[in-house]
Amino acid sequence: VPTDLSTGIETLKEKLLTMASYSEAAVNHAVKALMKRDDDLARQTREDDEIIDRLEMEIDAVSADLLTAQPDLFAIRFIIMAMKIAHDLERVGDEATTISRRCLELSREPVLPQVNEIPVIGRLALQMLKESLDAFVQQEPLKARDIIRSDDQVDDLNKRLRSELERIMIGNPASVPRCLNLMVISKSLERVADHATNIAEMVVYLYEGRDIRHSS
Amino acid sequence: VPTDLSTGIETLKEKLLTMASYSEAAVNHAVKALMKRDDDLARQTREDDEIIDRLEMEIDAVSADLLTAQPDLFAIRFIIMAMKIAHDLERVGDEATTISRRCLELSREPVLPQVNEIPVIGRLALQMLKESLDAFVQQEPLKARDIIRSDDQVDDLNKRLRSELERIMIGNPASVPRCLNLMVISKSLERVADHATNIAEMVVYLYEGRDIRHSS
Repeated sequence: VPTDLSTGIETLKEKLLTMASYSEAAVNHAVKALMKRDDDLARQTREDDEIIDRLEMEIDAVSADLLTAQPDLFAIRFIIMAMKIAHDLERVGDEATTISRRCLELSREPVLPQVNEIPVIGRLALQMLKESLDAFVQQEPLKARDIIRSDDQVDDLNKRLRSELERIMIGNPASVPRCLNLMVISKSLERVADHATNIAEMVVYLYEGRDIRHSS
Repeated sequence: VPTDLSTGIETLKEKLLTMASYSEAAVNHAVKALMKRDDDLARQTREDDEIIDRLEMEIDAVSADLLTAQPDLFAIRFIIMAMKIAHDLERVGDEATTISRRCLELSREPVLPQVNEIPVIGRLALQMLKESLDAFVQQEPLKARDIIRSDDQVDDLNKRLRSELERIMIGNPASVPRCLNLMVISKSLERVADHATNIAEMVVYLYEGRDIRHSS
């Protein structure tokens, strides 16, 4: 564990970006596994999740250590942000695991056409996640603020799919288990977008020193 | 904002306990609103949530400030733990809001007898939450470890109710909307128990210096 402050900050940055690419990949694989009905790919997502969990713990350990090195105010903010982003990324990994588990159930049953809505929501959520990390790397709080605004779009898509699935369940009770699985997957992707929003809020906190949570 | 370290730590402790009592009350009120079909009580929960959100932001601000006062390793751990617990309590408040929103939908329709399972799950989840904060106040990591073990029980209750509701939906399509609302409420309470588990893990981290997340 590094004790030198600037080396430590670099370590945190690298670990965050590694973690981000694993989390993005996990969600990507989970959605792909769903669409291709690829159980092996779905199972692989769970292994990614263990790496993601370990990275969060490493980031927290480096952060606690760095805080003993008398960081200045910006470094303190950076470290706090690193821990918070790591937590959100860890939760993204959990959502990917949830999606994968539901994939395994869905691939044993006939396809419901509503599954085609999932990659649409997935693409938007993953784009928000990617952009929130870009805003962090490029130090662009204004970009981060844009991302926060697109969260409503994902919420709307999720709500619309939810209502449609509810309607289908009522009309065709045999589809209930499949509809429930799709609902959980859609909700998971909506949560991925929520985590991207949290990350974007942290980028604003870091570069503007302003806590904009709960302000909308 | 206090700059003196020990005063600051006391402030954090007080704010955490205030936050905890609001979060517990919010969940309690939400479950009560469901059982009594009391829409006013359900709506009141949302107001509590704003207070809870504000407290998290205050705890984060005090924490960032205290970290500039060159805290020792234990104080650093305490501050990290305070921020993490505050985040979990904020999420507990969000779950109470989710439950309340579903209450308002459920109270417009005939009662499903399965609603009676909800207070059972709620009681267990709230007990875990209360005990995790007791373990924090009483500085008892061993007690915290016990709480973590009871999480499985809540998971099982939620899963069992979930399957039962699925069965009911298939047999009686008219009950689909109500069953979905109950499923969401049950899942929310299961999440409250997850947050209690996270808090307990943080208590172990503070008093044993060990990060036991993902170790089970």
